[in-house]
Amino acid sequence: MDKLEQLTVIGTGLLGTSVALGVRAAGLAHRIVGVGRRAATLDAAYATGGYDEVTSDLPAAVRRSDLILIAVPLSGFDSVFQQLATIVRDDAVLTDVGSTKQSVLAAARKRLSHPGRFVGSHPMAGREQQGPEAASAELCRGKPCIITPEPDTDADALAVVDGLWEALGMRLIRMSAEEHDRETAVISHLPHAMAALIVQVAAELGGWDVASTGFRDTTRLASSNPPMRADILSANRDQVLEALAAMRGQIGRLEAILVRRDRDSLLDLLEQSQRARDRWLSGRPDLRKSAEDPPGQEGE
Amino acid sequence: MDKLEQLTVIGTGLLGTSVALGVRAAGLAHRIVGVGRRAATLDAAYATGGYDEVTSDLPAAVRRSDLILIAVPLSGFDSVFQQLATIVRDDAVLTDVGSTKQSVLAAARKRLSHPGRFVGSHPMAGREQQGPEAASAELCRGKPCIITPEPDTDADALAVVDGLWEALGMRLIRMSAEEHDRETAVISHLPHAMAALIVQVAAELGGWDVASTGFRDTTRLASSNPPMRADILSANRDQVLEALAAMRGQIGRLEAILVRRDRDSLLDLLEQSQRARDRWLSGRPDLRKSAEDPPGQEGE
Repeated sequence: MDKLEQLTVIGTGLLGTSVALGVRAAGLAHRIVGVGRRAATLDAAYATGGYDEVTSDLPAAVRRSDLILIAVPLSGFDSVFQQLATIVRDDAVLTDVGSTKQSVLAAARKRLSHPGRFVGSHPMAGREQQGPEAASAELCRGKPCIITPEPDTDADALAVVDGLWEALGMRLIRMSAEEHDRETAVISHLPHAMAALIVQVAAELGGWDVASTGFRDTTRLASSNPPMRADILSANRDQVLEALAAMRGQIGRLEAILVRRDRDSLLDLLEQSQRARDRWLSGRPDLRKSAEDPPGQEGE
Repeated sequence: MDKLEQLTVIGTGLLGTSVALGVRAAGLAHRIVGVGRRAATLDAAYATGGYDEVTSDLPAAVRRSDLILIAVPLSGFDSVFQQLATIVRDDAVLTDVGSTKQSVLAAARKRLSHPGRFVGSHPMAGREQQGPEAASAELCRGKPCIITPEPDTDADALAVVDGLWEALGMRLIRMSAEEHDRETAVISHLPHAMAALIVQVAAELGGWDVASTGFRDTTRLASSNPPMRADILSANRDQVLEALAAMRGQIGRLEAILVRRDRDSLLDLLEQSQRARDRWLSGRPDLRKSAEDPPGQEGE
């Protein structure tokens, strides 16, 4: 892709700043500007070296920008689109990093006069730590990025967004916003919900003293940002409810197996799950743990 | 504790061989003998350097042993106790590494003429990889070991078993077998079941393509040994059913919150879980991940 005139990142947290650092490392933009509201976050973002300038003045920042990345929490999208509506250049391209796509697209359609310039993106990369201090130019490398163009998306806008994520080393997956929300409800939002609920069961029934690595890893997602996850579960409510209903069905199946002491079906279920997960993981070298994992970190 | 004459490890897999290696490193026994059925496993166990001798002749091996560690799958305990009943020395101490304790104790009481010589143990250490090849003298260090003495347990037998696990650097926790089974149902067997069932939901509804680190870690336990887990879930059936019922209750609570779009309660639930897990983890330095974790391995 042609070198960008100016990338503007609205929301200079972990993901936004990681993109800024990656774009800088790839030499993809002449100028990178970060926009945020909290001075402390802006200072920390600037200190990473990812930005030529940081500011809280959104209109001034986007006026000369040919690519705008929205990296704010889901609850902030509507307000950002509203502010952008009247000030973006006609030829500017907009994209985002939101964890749900139907709600973001709906806000874009409602607020933008040319929604065809907006291309929904969901780079599937993150860390437990939040904020620009945890950002890294390599955060996105090797990870999947879902892109959800609409029938009326401008082809040149789509090409710019594809080019952005490819330059960061991401593996592009194209699907509809509806598909995205259904699939992420299963493989992201459901695990988030289950991690939180397993902790609730432990709070209810006890056992903390004897908890070990298995509990730690299965509940890891319970330690990530609560307001962000509340936003995601709310925005993707219907699909999350479907996944939860499927989970209740699976629990009922396991309960029935245990009640009738059906060891063959129990072994079958566990072996199916093992095979399915191992097959998936064997096709995803980017997700394999480093060989340096100390012994005793796995199992139990 | 006094140096042991002979430690006999029955079952030379990951845990049995890790104990042998740890006892050797601590200089705790004059002689360490491994007992198993499969020649290939025995050869691999011997190759670790943890044993002075490996054999499939259980009676010959235990006759001169003053400490016997049973490290076979749960389904093998009854048969091992039966074989041991008539041949162990009167002053020998027996212990185990079984993941449930009421079923093991019941088998000991049924088969042994002096069940007071048996002390139930559950060292909470493991890895995804199985077999003696994955064993390490350090596997147990810093991890909790639950010990479940009964009112009629001999005090000297308990002292020997305490001494064994302390020498391996474990943190001893004493509780009743019933408490053990209830607590491990919550913090170990429930996460194992949930990991397998989340994979089943993904198999049912799809989404593999977009699965990332969150899915990987939440379902990690689904890749561990299915027969071993079928044994554990079967042996601890009633307590596992209670934990599953509590989990269904928690899912129902989350569903109700989502249905009525109650963002405050949703945020509350997620914040409670985060606080409870973080508080637990801050008290468990042995479980904190190494600082070398590459960025992008966490989150999502």
